[in-house]
Amino acid sequence: MSGNNSALLGRPSERVQTVGYGAAGTAGDAAVAAQHGAGLYAYSERVDSWVVRTAKPVSYEVRVADGLFDFERTDLLEPAAAPGKRLRRFVVLDSDVDLLHGNRIRAYFDYHDVEHVICVVPADETVKSFETAARIVEELDAFGVDRRREPLIVIGGGVLMDIVGLASSLYRRGTPFIRVPTTLIGLVDAGVGAKTGVNFNGHKNRLGTYFPADLTLLDRTFLATLDRRHIGNGLAEILKIALIKDARLFDVLESHGPLLLNEKFQGESEAGEDAAREVVHRAIQGMLEELQPNLWETKLERSVDYGHTFSPTVEMRALPALLHGEAVCVDMALTTALARRRGLIDDADARRVYDVMHGLELPAWDDLLDQPELLTAALLDTVRHRNGQQRLPLPVGIGDVTFVNDVTERELLDAVAELRVAGRGRGRDLVEGQHV
Amino acid sequence: MSGNNSALLGRPSERVQTVGYGAAGTAGDAAVAAQHGAGLYAYSERVDSWVVRTAKPVSYEVRVADGLFDFERTDLLEPAAAPGKRLRRFVVLDSDVDLLHGNRIRAYFDYHDVEHVICVVPADETVKSFETAARIVEELDAFGVDRRREPLIVIGGGVLMDIVGLASSLYRRGTPFIRVPTTLIGLVDAGVGAKTGVNFNGHKNRLGTYFPADLTLLDRTFLATLDRRHIGNGLAEILKIALIKDARLFDVLESHGPLLLNEKFQGESEAGEDAAREVVHRAIQGMLEELQPNLWETKLERSVDYGHTFSPTVEMRALPALLHGEAVCVDMALTTALARRRGLIDDADARRVYDVMHGLELPAWDDLLDQPELLTAALLDTVRHRNGQQRLPLPVGIGDVTFVNDVTERELLDAVAELRVAGRGRGRDLVEGQHV
Ligand SMILES: NC(=O)c1ccc[n+]([C@@H]2O[C@H](COP(=O)([O-])OP(=O)(O)OC[C@H]3O[C@@H](n4cnc5c(N)ncnc54)[C@H](O)[C@@H]3O)[C@@H](O)[C@H]2O)c1
Ligand SMILES: NC(=O)c1ccc[n+]([C@@H]2O[C@H](COP(=O)([O-])OP(=O)(O)OC[C@H]3O[C@@H](n4cnc5c(N)ncnc54)[C@H](O)[C@@H]3O)[C@@H](O)[C@H]2O)c1
Ligand SMILES: [Zn+2]
Ligand SMILES: [Zn+2]
Repeated sequence: MSGNNSALLGRPSERVQTVGYGAAGTAGDAAVAAQHGAGLYAYSERVDSWVVRTAKPVSYEVRVADGLFDFERTDLLEPAAAPGKRLRRFVVLDSDVDLLHGNRIRAYFDYHDVEHVICVVPADETVKSFETAARIVEELDAFGVDRRREPLIVIGGGVLMDIVGLASSLYRRGTPFIRVPTTLIGLVDAGVGAKTGVNFNGHKNRLGTYFPADLTLLDRTFLATLDRRHIGNGLAEILKIALIKDARLFDVLESHGPLLLNEKFQGESEAGEDAAREVVHRAIQGMLEELQPNLWETKLERSVDYGHTFSPTVEMRALPALLHGEAVCVDMALTTALARRRGLIDDADARRVYDVMHGLELPAWDDLLDQPELLTAALLDTVRHRNGQQRLPLPVGIGDVTFVNDVTERELLDAVAELRVAGRGRGRDLVEGQHV
Repeated sequence: MSGNNSALLGRPSERVQTVGYGAAGTAGDAAVAAQHGAGLYAYSERVDSWVVRTAKPVSYEVRVADGLFDFERTDLLEPAAAPGKRLRRFVVLDSDVDLLHGNRIRAYFDYHDVEHVICVVPADETVKSFETAARIVEELDAFGVDRRREPLIVIGGGVLMDIVGLASSLYRRGTPFIRVPTTLIGLVDAGVGAKTGVNFNGHKNRLGTYFPADLTLLDRTFLATLDRRHIGNGLAEILKIALIKDARLFDVLESHGPLLLNEKFQGESEAGEDAAREVVHRAIQGMLEELQPNLWETKLERSVDYGHTFSPTVEMRALPALLHGEAVCVDMALTTALARRRGLIDDADARRVYDVMHGLELPAWDDLLDQPELLTAALLDTVRHRNGQQRLPLPVGIGDVTFVNDVTERELLDAVAELRVAGRGRGRDLVEGQHV
């Protein structure tokens, strides 16, 4: 199951090269003339450089698993224990999820006679820190797991999955883990990629790793107990995917967004069930299509970075007022205004975008946008993150994206001024407000 | 220079698979029949699993670079700055090295007009912690680097390189770094592999990553100011390589070990220069041959783990009394006794091993070995680290290795009893002491 274990599959040729190297570009003398004897000893091999080339194979699975904690489901029992041994699992559980679902989760592990510890952790953005990861590792150390065959299990939202993912990647330099997302953001975004992380020094996800869970198990029934606001929060990341690459997904959000909010993806009506299934499926499919060829972000022009240019700074400065998806939505609102001013998206489509944000009960404005120095600082940090260029994703109509590197402060201020009216009015005043 | 940038070289075929999956093993129905209209809406696509497969290409260089800080050398100026921009570097410097070599290091960066910050860090095993890494990251954050083209530079021993390697791997989920080892352990071991790490919760290197520096620059002249004891410390890791795979290297240590200690690898005599060069070269070559095919330790039977079965626990419990290489040497002494009792190494060769340890002024005994529960705990933790089996490397003669999984506590106690005499007497009393 672990990507680590498939290291011998399809790896490119690997070798240690000894590369000649000399002061003036001349190749080194690689002749060996070592002699060894009583008092007579010389060594003349010259190797001036070694180059190591290899590749780490990675594979992981995202599996639909509704009713995950029904006793007959066995997804969480993978991989099997060594012959004659009891299964052992270290489980990290969001404290809110514990209150709402803890009984059936505990019953499941008891039923299957799994030797386990449940480490309950209160999780929200304010405790997304290394210290929280460290406390989890201390409990993990006390339990003790075999390094490759006793994966950690994390059950919770994006915050807890990011923290436990980091802890797993660091523990003994990598211990497999399994994700069970319980929020919408978790299901369609945080649970399907490779990124882990914690906030540090006031910066969003400043420390982290690329370390996908071996397995993510998607059980939509958890969303039944989620706040309406957190459903909207997840819909923001789904809207991101729609805007950059999936016009059809946008249409579904436009027509069924409020229904999805009302039904919390539980399929109370037939249309609600179909919409929930289609939206989740399209969001994950779209996300994985973008991530898979670029899992380590070798390419820094990432369309899924849409909405994530100004939002990391906005989210941290607003903390805890704005949720992650809400901050992303504010960023998308601003960059939609930028795109509209550049003629990349027309008035009608921009209005549709703001209307969908409104329908999903998401903010298209935040007063922090009125602080020009905050936006400048946000852009500067993102430019560092993107290795010296803006690489700013902007929507092209609905369902496509382009990247620009030449946004000026003036342009930003103009877009803010426009959004101040359009976003506050949530799309209603876009055309009227465009030259404010 | 960064491994990340070569992502398109020789990667195996990459794709997102949508894998059918059904309750009773039947394939899912993957037909799409989504319709969307006023009130009439259905979606019937069933995808129950996504599998992501990819591989991360990694390459790095270990380069001999004597006289690294001579103004005409340009290794530390790689990669070049963006056109028209000044080079910027964040440099982390061991505080002892700063006292001894700081002037010429600072002069170098000044001479080349590099905009830089030198972050001076006192480093030894007792401060090999996440907190130290965090303080470095705070200073890094204040300086700010472009994510891919402004590598961190670490100048120091194994401790500082491991800490900065971890910080680099975590900062924005990976920022390139360059290693300049200034100790012998750094030159032949910590500087050439991929491991980073810090101690945590009383355990050696409990948190870490695999994240090789893009470039390691080897400048032997730093060793001139190193304590004699720290030269011996590095020679212990070199002895490890000799014992598992390089009988010729063992011979050189046997004949020239004391000379290397005396000359600190500075080549004061011709024989000393040749020995220094051969020993460093063989140690690195041997290490890389072992690491390169198994950089992520997919295979847990690692011959370079020799001396690292009991030593992580011994080193931490003895802290700060035993240096890393000294703890490794005590472990090698114990496992040599184990091997001798099993007939894997004969009396004469075992005596040579203890004599070489003696000649390198390394301990072949520590009183902690007299605590059976410590050895048992050490073995238990290593068994977890090696995924449930001992996979204990034992020497076969001199220059070869085998792995065993069946060492008993009784056997361990017998080996300790033997070593208590043989090791304390540093090889002299081996045969006499064998049945104590
Ligand atoms: N790694 C990635 O690729 C990635 C992608 C997107 C977002 N993220 C991260 O995810 C985080 C946001 O995730 P989130 O929105 O899930 O936040 P979260 O984990 O804080 O969960 C939101 C709240 O819901 C509670 N909760 C969780 N499940 C519940 C349930 N089933 N019923 C009732 N309450 C429940 C939690 O206790 C929490 O208070 C951000 O930190 C963001 O950076 C990461
Ligand atoms: N990552 C790996 O693959 C790997 C391999 C082997 C060892 N290690 C780690 O390396 C560490 C041991 O490394 P180390 O022995 O270099 O320890 P170290 O970094 O603590 O250095 C030893 C001492 O020498 C001082 N020093 C460094 N350079 C000097 C110089 N040129 N002149 C004078 N003093 C100098 C340091 O300040 C320190 O006090 C251990 O923590 C071990 O776990 C890592
Ligand atoms: Zn996001
Ligand atoms: Zn070591």
